[in-house]
Amino acid sequence: MTVSIKDLTIAVVGATGAVGTEFFRIAEQRYAQLPKIKALASSRSVGKRLTVGGRELVVAEATEDSFAGVDIAFIGVTSEVSRRLAPAAVAAGAVVIDDGSAFRMQDEVPLVVPEVNGADVEWHSGIISIPNCSTTPLVVAAHPLHSVNPIVRIVAATYQSVSGAGGAPMVELREQAQDVLDGKPAKTEAISQQIAFNVIPRIDQFGEDGYTFEEQKMRQETQKIMHAPTIRFSATCVRVPVYVTHCAAVNLEFESPMSPDEARQLMREMPGITVLDDPAHDAYPMPWDVTGTDDVFVGRIRQDTSHPNGLVMWIAADNLRKGAALNSLQIAEELVARNCLKPDRAKRVKSGAGS
Amino acid sequence: MTVSIKDLTIAVVGATGAVGTEFFRIAEQRYAQLPKIKALASSRSVGKRLTVGGRELVVAEATEDSFAGVDIAFIGVTSEVSRRLAPAAVAAGAVVIDDGSAFRMQDEVPLVVPEVNGADVEWHSGIISIPNCSTTPLVVAAHPLHSVNPIVRIVAATYQSVSGAGGAPMVELREQAQDVLDGKPAKTEAISQQIAFNVIPRIDQFGEDGYTFEEQKMRQETQKIMHAPTIRFSATCVRVPVYVTHCAAVNLEFESPMSPDEARQLMREMPGITVLDDPAHDAYPMPWDVTGTDDVFVGRIRQDTSHPNGLVMWIAADNLRKGAALNSLQIAEELVARNCLKPDRAKRVKSGAGS
Repeated sequence: MTVSIKDLTIAVVGATGAVGTEFFRIAEQRYAQLPKIKALASSRSVGKRLTVGGRELVVAEATEDSFAGVDIAFIGVTSEVSRRLAPAAVAAGAVVIDDGSAFRMQDEVPLVVPEVNGADVEWHSGIISIPNCSTTPLVVAAHPLHSVNPIVRIVAATYQSVSGAGGAPMVELREQAQDVLDGKPAKTEAISQQIAFNVIPRIDQFGEDGYTFEEQKMRQETQKIMHAPTIRFSATCVRVPVYVTHCAAVNLEFESPMSPDEARQLMREMPGITVLDDPAHDAYPMPWDVTGTDDVFVGRIRQDTSHPNGLVMWIAADNLRKGAALNSLQIAEELVARNCLKPDRAKRVKSGAGS
Repeated sequence: MTVSIKDLTIAVVGATGAVGTEFFRIAEQRYAQLPKIKALASSRSVGKRLTVGGRELVVAEATEDSFAGVDIAFIGVTSEVSRRLAPAAVAAGAVVIDDGSAFRMQDEVPLVVPEVNGADVEWHSGIISIPNCSTTPLVVAAHPLHSVNPIVRIVAATYQSVSGAGGAPMVELREQAQDVLDGKPAKTEAISQQIAFNVIPRIDQFGEDGYTFEEQKMRQETQKIMHAPTIRFSATCVRVPVYVTHCAAVNLEFESPMSPDEARQLMREMPGITVLDDPAHDAYPMPWDVTGTDDVFVGRIRQDTSHPNGLVMWIAADNLRKGAALNSLQIAEELVARNCLKPDRAKRVKSGAGS
């Protein structure tokens, strides 16, 4: 008998957060029959009622004992909580799909965007990580190009929405914007600086090399997911006053020249990408339009006037969906399709990944 | 007798616009004694009263006949109007300082940022252009570095405020933001797309190479101002929901390596730059803080992890002040200091500029 998603028991840790909410919304849209769902969150949210696919779920506290009988545990909470709960879930026999940065760069943890490196789910040891929501759109767009003409250097500048930092910053942006419109000072709590009518060129803490952790993560994760540890990479990650959807201006340098037309064609053939690139009709991806969709959108594709082997493009994706919840569900589907719910470390040697 | 600004008659075309307003504000702050000022605008604004330095000015219509007795005419209106009025002003004996793109790339027109190429005012033929407000901060920051270690390539992604498009878009951002907060659809008029809680990866029209005119202008103007026609250049210009101050994430590639410390030192020694770069204290330039100041602010200076000769930085400047009105006034001061109110084409050959 073939196992399918509906036969599984799935735990969602962070069920009341921004990503958890989007997770349930996508599951409702994606599956005719939902799996059995355990909605878990911190003690603060215990007893809250959620309606998913017509069923009522009561939120329970996420503890080390929450995972008996669970096949897949999605964890979309802080890295601290994830470090405590993920090993307990694995010990109880679940596969953990983790949205945080706690395990991503560990050698024994596959870091997976199914369109790019779906086969990497085969060598998990119980935990699979999903990338930072700023990394995912970039690797989806870069992958079909890199497959025919290796990328040697990436320079990116991001335009990241506040929901990348969670639900509270979304409320804060709204409140700050109203305060500024009313001529009042903006209150900062969830985000360290005013974000309304401002941009903040800093996401996460600073590393010793002057790059932020967010920028370092984009580099390391891109290299790991694409199995391309030698790609040279530099990002500047910037928060902008947008609720949902991350964008990036990206310069890609290839081993040899690639025309914009070839790039468009390769990306059009790739599942999960929408090429929206029609200057004559003023068509390019913007957060307000992309929010709520599943694809990675690419536009403004042009020859890089500063490098003969370069292309420049503009990439946008809903950071709560493809950047988090949808990618997690696609990994679950990949695990089911490849019959990999049980760990199989032996396969890792074959894949050569994680380098 | 030495001529000074207070001895001149200055016409301001576009006196009621965003740049004109800032022009008067800076003049009040900068000069103990103001020059004689003629406030000119379109027929729509005729009769409006402005108070500048305690004096009341009545706005007159800007026509070809407005420039008798004028020493310097600042023109901060559309390129169409500028093409009509600038020659008339020159014919009347004025030096035109033009804020638009109409004349910038003409061989006989110096394009000037005084800190970078002030000497270029010496070979004007009646018209001096100031650069696009996205170009100015970049060349100010790049110049002291380029002087000791030539820059060979620049990759920039901008975060440009709506005031770069004029006063109406500032009102529109405010109205759109309130509509969105109230759950109503945003109305677009001054800007072709919704800008509130959105970003727009397109400024000005598209060129045939896929770059916008704004992006092409940044390339051409940077090369002209820096007298460096071989600098390879690529920009992605993006509008963000910010009222005032343009920012840019910039990757600079030099002929040989330059350390972040050396770059900071060189920029600290340059008039017109404030280095605000202290990760330990979460200090970097942001529009909300930079607006209303005169300097170009630079932060996030770090070694480019994608190139051994590269530096990455974050540049911000008030686009209405240093990006427009202040730069115009500094050119007027340069003209006075160098005694160049009368055209002197002969000097151009010596300078070798404009290539």
